Amino acid sequence: MKKKILEQLKNNKGDFVSGEELSSGLGVSRTSIWKYIKSLKEEGYDIESSSRKGYKLIEEPDKFSQEELEIILKDNDFIKKIYYFDTIDSTNKYAKELALKGADEGTLILSDEQRGGRGRLGRNWISPPNTGLWMSIILRPQIKPWEAPQITSIAAAALCKAIENTINIKVGIKWPNDIVVNNKKISGILTEMGAEPDTVNFIVVGIGINVNTEDFPEDIKDIATSLKLIKGDTVSRKRLLINVLQEFKSFYLDFVNNKTLKKSIDICRENSIILGNKVKIINGMEEIIVVALDINDRGELVVKKDNGEIINIISGEVSLRGVSNYI
Amino acid sequence: MKKKILEQLKNNKGDFVSGEELSSGLGVSRTSIWKYIKSLKEEGYDIESSSRKGYKLIEEPDKFSQEELEIILKDNDFIKKIYYFDTIDSTNKYAKELALKGADEGTLILSDEQRGGRGRLGRNWISPPNTGLWMSIILRPQIKPWEAPQITSIAAAALCKAIENTINIKVGIKWPNDIVVNNKKISGILTEMGAEPDTVNFIVVGIGINVNTEDFPEDIKDIATSLKLIKGDTVSRKRLLINVLQEFKSFYLDFVNNKTLKKSIDICRENSIILGNKVKIINGMEEIIVVALDINDRGELVVKKDNGEIINIISGEVSLRGVSNYI
Repeated sequence: MKKKILEQLKNNKGDFVSGEELSSGLGVSRTSIWKYIKSLKEEGYDIESSSRKGYKLIEEPDKFSQEELEIILKDNDFIKKIYYFDTIDSTNKYAKELALKGADEGTLILSDEQRGGRGRLGRNWISPPNTGLWMSIILRPQIKPWEAPQITSIAAAALCKAIENTINIKVGIKWPNDIVVNNKKISGILTEMGAEPDTVNFIVVGIGINVNTEDFPEDIKDIATSLKLIKGDTVSRKRLLINVLQEFKSFYLDFVNNKTLKKSIDICRENSIILGNKVKIINGMEEIIVVALDINDRGELVVKKDNGEIINIISGEVSLRGVSNYI
Repeated sequence: MKKKILEQLKNNKGDFVSGEELSSGLGVSRTSIWKYIKSLKEEGYDIESSSRKGYKLIEEPDKFSQEELEIILKDNDFIKKIYYFDTIDSTNKYAKELALKGADEGTLILSDEQRGGRGRLGRNWISPPNTGLWMSIILRPQIKPWEAPQITSIAAAALCKAIENTINIKVGIKWPNDIVVNNKKISGILTEMGAEPDTVNFIVVGIGINVNTEDFPEDIKDIATSLKLIKGDTVSRKRLLINVLQEFKSFYLDFVNNKTLKKSIDICRENSIILGNKVKIINGMEEIIVVALDINDRGELVVKKDNGEIINIISGEVSLRGVSNYI
């Protein structure tokens, strides 16, 4: 009910909707309507009330709620079910549990805050409330476990395009899973899977974006930034979310339906900050310095070793730091 | 406490242990001892009671319980924690949930019955009570997702050797994950993993063995058999379990500590029922008929295609049926 009232107010933002109309249209008493409006105001919605004219939505908070997400993502038919949390330990962890229990492709888990957000290889991902987008999407593509990195390419392409669409700033990709500006991280992707040796059962794509973060902890302030810090202005998390999920849907369905990664890989190539550079590839305790030549059609990084040998790297960690040609 | 009493009776099987000794040794009243003995009798333990001499364990049921498993697997220092169930939907499912929550390597889940036991690709695995071994082991090897099939090879080798040790019958492996006798399945392995694109977080190895099954449902009676049907006599599930986990420990630790699969692969080769034969490789909707030449050091199947090309198959489904040279 609250969702329906909010939806009507949003559809008529800046205009009055009469209490009468809401009450008869939704089949509830005017007292009920008044209570829901009160609750929306408490959540930060700026709503003008007039006993004659009704209710007018003046301003919305950049806050999420189950109702708000269901309204703003209604047009994205790829997102079938939404789980919203004010706070959670990790959206990826929750998503994996849901996926094990059979949750469908297109399930979205989004939390305003993560208390134990994670990046690759179990590292922390700082996810404070009110500032970022922290979410996970459950997918069930018919792929092999060694093709899972392709999903990371799709998410990276979607993030680039969505950020560009939203704030008109071009961002870079540090292959395979970081989105950066001036070599500072603004977004990361954590792809995880449940699989048998030759069949993926589910993929969980975790996406974290530092949207309006202004202060970072001491230990990461040199390597992390936010869209707000880059743009110099607050960025609408809602608009960004809509765009990210729209782009993701488009790239992912192209992959699933047309069996091609071309559109995603083209963007990964164009936005790559490592192609043409010497980079360090880190694989557990091993490190090699190579020249990054290309990203191939499967999303693998094609590199040239010191001895001239050219090899493909399926997935891994790349560093530009501590390499002589690092600018 | 019940476990300690059972352990003492088992250690002195066929001999009397006095109630006095049990009572003072374990620091509980003789009435308590009597109650525990009563409960053990109800579980099927044949215990002779004498007011003068105490209690004598005459015969044990081939039944599992938390206490029984902890006692019989006490010497296997690889198995760190045991979860026993009389009935469960699927031990692999439960193991994956535990693994997501951080369960350690060496966690064993065993159930007397599975109501929703599964084989590869979501197929059913019939797991009635009192007849089989249905279990899952959680592992945390530092491997890549594409190396997960190696764990299947280790389990297959362990099963061959354990069955041979227990009932002195040589069994065959239908690469990669079925144990067969006369081309009828007696055991299957279901390896599953939780992973990031380039790191396995956990592996769950599910093992199902038809031990004392006498009747199979109509639709699988031509393709399934049990150790009892082969041997013509009841097989001790406890002895088999001890042997399976002992062999698994040995092959797995050789792999982890010495970074070699050699011992496992040698057994997979020796016991293979497909090497030298024409087989059908089934990959989703695609099928090709090839000659199986070898199993390489990574556990991959080396096959020759019709056009003479030699390729390695990482994992998949192999069928001997419907192929002309099938004997």
